[in-house]
Amino acid sequence: MLYAEAVWLQSLDCACKKIGIFIVMTDKTASLQSRTTVQQCLHARLQVKPPDEQSEAEWVEIDRGMVICICFFKGATEDIIPKMVTSLLNIKLCETDSGKYVSVLDLPGSVLIVPQATLGGKAKGKVMQYHGNVGKEEGQQLYAQFVSQCEKEVAASSKCSEAGVMVRHGTYGNRQVLKLDTNGPYTHLMEF
Amino acid sequence: MLYAEAVWLQSLDCACKKIGIFIVMTDKTASLQSRTTVQQCLHARLQVKPPDEQSEAEWVEIDRGMVICICFFKGATEDIIPKMVTSLLNIKLCETDSGKYVSVLDLPGSVLIVPQATLGGKAKGKVMQYHGNVGKEEGQQLYAQFVSQCEKEVAASSKCSEAGVMVRHGTYGNRQVLKLDTNGPYTHLMEF
Repeated sequence: MLYAEAVWLQSLDCACKKIGIFIVMTDKTASLQSRTTVQQCLHARLQVKPPDEQSEAEWVEIDRGMVICICFFKGATEDIIPKMVTSLLNIKLCETDSGKYVSVLDLPGSVLIVPQATLGGKAKGKVMQYHGNVGKEEGQQLYAQFVSQCEKEVAASSKCSEAGVMVRHGTYGNRQVLKLDTNGPYTHLMEF
Repeated sequence: MLYAEAVWLQSLDCACKKIGIFIVMTDKTASLQSRTTVQQCLHARLQVKPPDEQSEAEWVEIDRGMVICICFFKGATEDIIPKMVTSLLNIKLCETDSGKYVSVLDLPGSVLIVPQATLGGKAKGKVMQYHGNVGKEEGQQLYAQFVSQCEKEVAASSKCSEAGVMVRHGTYGNRQVLKLDTNGPYTHLMEF
């Protein structure tokens, strides 16, 4: 808040208290439940299991489609999931061969969902802090629900089924080793 | 705003007007001047000139470092640039071989700056709108200043000069054809 705004608000507060009214400031951003970035890809490859002594790393990949990075905040509930899924799968950000923009369901394209708790970071000097992020267990549940509902939406679309497009997702809590090939990521931010 | 809040505010507004005070609501996000995403990369390649009849496409590339996608909003001025440059080049988001996190100047790593006006988009139903974005000419100037100041910061760092790291950038207004290889993009959002 600017200094002038703060002084003005203080006068307003005094005046209001005299007539029996209290001012309560709310932080608009405190009600955010999730943050996502959406990028368009020609191909994307994501490690879902790191290599160990006995086996090589495991990967998932998608061809043309959308990469959704996702983070949940404290206070996020499962009620936000359907809204997120509907918005993300229906927003017209995918470029067709003719240059028109359609949803990923209409392209139809594949979807790669990448957990990115780092998206919730807030800079404090030279360091990032993640105080607003949801707890690990809750976050994992919300993430799993989001993935599951995306899979259902795509499976329910005959256009998607016929084209053989898929939903793939990263392993919550892992390092998200990602390779991305694009014809322009056309990066968007969507918050819920 | 919730309905209850709106009703309460309306009563407050009436009461205040009676004693000669006016309530003005400000949208906190209206003061945002820029939005950036920051990702870590092992290698990134960006097209800076599309192919034409006479020549192939031209590209810039960086090895290990940071990819900064950047968008300016209406009302952004050059005063915000130094703050952005200082924050982005000094925030500790780059992973060293020992697993510690340092700034890109300290890694030291290269920087790829990608214009992404799409980051300013706001969803309205199924369509994105970019009403809050800065105009094309102003945006180009701010972008050029940002690139230039990043280049100066990096050139002024002896650690960076000795390591031979570089600042590369996309062509404002072009399609940003990007290939990204990461050991985890560690994606962050930084707004100014």
